[in-house]
Amino acid sequence: MKFGGTSVADAERLKRAARRIVAQREAGHRVVAVLSARGKTTDDLIRLAQEVSATPDPREMDMLLSTGERISCALCAMAINDLGHKAISLTGSQAGIVTDTSHTKARILDVRADRITSALAEDQIVLVAGFQGVSTSRDVTTLGRGGSDTTAVALAAAVGADVCEIYTDVAGVFSADPRIVPDARKLPLVSFEEMLEMASSGAKVLQLRSVEYARNHGVRIHCRSSFDDGPGTLVVGEQETMEHALITAVTHSTEEARVSLLGVPDEPGAAARIFGALADANCNVDMIIQNEPLGAGRQAEVSFTVPREDLRDAQAALQPIIADLGIAAIDTEPESGKVSIVGAGMKSHPGVAAKVFATLAREGINIDMISTSPIKISCVIRNDQVPTAVRALHAAFELGAGGIEAERPIGEAAR
Amino acid sequence: MKFGGTSVADAERLKRAARRIVAQREAGHRVVAVLSARGKTTDDLIRLAQEVSATPDPREMDMLLSTGERISCALCAMAINDLGHKAISLTGSQAGIVTDTSHTKARILDVRADRITSALAEDQIVLVAGFQGVSTSRDVTTLGRGGSDTTAVALAAAVGADVCEIYTDVAGVFSADPRIVPDARKLPLVSFEEMLEMASSGAKVLQLRSVEYARNHGVRIHCRSSFDDGPGTLVVGEQETMEHALITAVTHSTEEARVSLLGVPDEPGAAARIFGALADANCNVDMIIQNEPLGAGRQAEVSFTVPREDLRDAQAALQPIIADLGIAAIDTEPESGKVSIVGAGMKSHPGVAAKVFATLAREGINIDMISTSPIKISCVIRNDQVPTAVRALHAAFELGAGGIEAERPIGEAAR
Repeated sequence: MKFGGTSVADAERLKRAARRIVAQREAGHRVVAVLSARGKTTDDLIRLAQEVSATPDPREMDMLLSTGERISCALCAMAINDLGHKAISLTGSQAGIVTDTSHTKARILDVRADRITSALAEDQIVLVAGFQGVSTSRDVTTLGRGGSDTTAVALAAAVGADVCEIYTDVAGVFSADPRIVPDARKLPLVSFEEMLEMASSGAKVLQLRSVEYARNHGVRIHCRSSFDDGPGTLVVGEQETMEHALITAVTHSTEEARVSLLGVPDEPGAAARIFGALADANCNVDMIIQNEPLGAGRQAEVSFTVPREDLRDAQAALQPIIADLGIAAIDTEPESGKVSIVGAGMKSHPGVAAKVFATLAREGINIDMISTSPIKISCVIRNDQVPTAVRALHAAFELGAGGIEAERPIGEAAR
Repeated sequence: MKFGGTSVADAERLKRAARRIVAQREAGHRVVAVLSARGKTTDDLIRLAQEVSATPDPREMDMLLSTGERISCALCAMAINDLGHKAISLTGSQAGIVTDTSHTKARILDVRADRITSALAEDQIVLVAGFQGVSTSRDVTTLGRGGSDTTAVALAAAVGADVCEIYTDVAGVFSADPRIVPDARKLPLVSFEEMLEMASSGAKVLQLRSVEYARNHGVRIHCRSSFDDGPGTLVVGEQETMEHALITAVTHSTEEARVSLLGVPDEPGAAARIFGALADANCNVDMIIQNEPLGAGRQAEVSFTVPREDLRDAQAALQPIIADLGIAAIDTEPESGKVSIVGAGMKSHPGVAAKVFATLAREGINIDMISTSPIKISCVIRNDQVPTAVRALHAAFELGAGGIEAERPIGEAAR
């Protein structure tokens, strides 16, 4: 069971999380719970660091930030003990989360869960501080933003848990953002592959990395609300989602920027230099398209998208490359958005792409870039047209609660 | 170098502490610094615990409270790195502070300082989270209130430091509380034994336990202000304080309560039962006097003092004993105070006690209880008479800045 920052933000919510944990224990389960830092704790600690140092040392940043989750765990253990159950809180290090030495964005190398398993054997509820581990050099490390999801999935894999329950402030994964599409439907079942595409194309429910880890280790995730008891969304292997609909969800992002490089010399290594420079500048490049016009004197056009906040860095990183490679021009569009449809069922349906394009055309929406995978079609469009596009696609593929596929209880769907 | 909570309370003070640490490093010293939690951090964490649980689990309390010092250390390390020096922060566990398993009041069993010494050898400044360690069961423990002083002294002993500097918001140890006695003198030199008597009779500069540890391991303590550069008070072995004055200081407390038990049967084990019950109730009994009147039918009178805040608990703990032992009556005086004179020089001067009593008599102050050690005389008096008593004794023994013993620079005094 993993509880995010909003689910442990104050004493009342902490006690509610404690009661949910105890309820699972009393239902006969052995429970390991991973907690995030309370509400704004991490932001407060970052502000403190900025007050004392312009460029805080990464090792010390980890020592600082790792305290927030420990506070949540200790408080929750106290609350559980008051409910008449035995609980023990463990730091990431005590829980056996061993990472590399990349401070502030460490990768998990190993999970040595013997302390957890012996506590479970002694009938204790185990609370683990999320988002952190201990490096091979015995220093405290953190896993980066959203790392608590990854902690939870990694522990679920290490102890062989039946399921990894992720409690958040939303009720599950939806067929589209309910704030844009009022009849968006809560999805009972999503495959790892679909969830990966959704997480990387704008759905914020689960952290991308934790879904990767879950897929690689076969950990079933149940994504559900910490504020009501109903079932949420189960993220499972594809074999469990055989009877899946053609399309699962429409996802979107309004925080994109598009960069086009015109007249890129078509020589080996050009693309490697461009995207190498962007990677060195920590620009998170998403969609990449290269197009080599026929008879254009062996010159290509390269376009890509970055999060809008990275645009300035991307332009700076590209300046020397443009001169070096003799690129003719750079063109940027900071007000871009992206709309995607995701669904494992579309693999064998070549008509899906055409339907997407026709739907957008009918709304008068121009498509700037297209990128596809076997289970996803993404279109970069103008930022202000994103809500219209989402609603149109959601309706066209009949994804709403009134659509062709009625919601089934999770138990049945999982068969 | 140990910095208390007020010395690291905000970003400005943290940076000032960082500059002081760096100054010592640049003067050629290898530095280990112990930091307390910032300002009210510990109180805030205790309040959080009380919000979630009426009786917080001690193990979890330690997990919770130990975070405050880690935050101070990480922030200070960042500030030092910004000043162009290499600093590394360590938790109590990483620093090798091994304790017993008595959560919230653990005792240090061993200090395995190899990680500190190797960091020092790599030219790093080492910052250690005070007040905490790791138990023999691999749990985080805390050393109780004021435990950071003990951490500092223990580390000084383990690494063989020249001196353990304790930085506080006062300039050193004074011949009396300067708020009561305006011409109180800062003492350049105090022996461990004197400091122990002073700490246990009301002086709040150093924590009693840290002075005990320093005496047992021969650690020289330099108690000084974190806000100015002047020398403070050196606490050293008695051999270094040979030319000491008769009396060193007057200390006092206004937070005492006195309890008298009348008609206690003079049978073996009566005192053991009384004080055993008080210990079980965690009442901190200070002065104990037993007086067996001649010819009183083998009945004794037993009096003792407790901190005023413990009086109610003490009375409750004694109720069953009073009935059991057939004690005739219990008499309490909640408005008590204590005034003490301390000085290694008084050992060979039997006239000191008489002079104390005469001085108090001249001021019309009645003495309720007297307790002596070879280097201390304490008198329990009425609470509201304490300031008068302190001023009278300070003047009678000529302890002021205008007194017989002029202040010497620390360097000379330490010879």
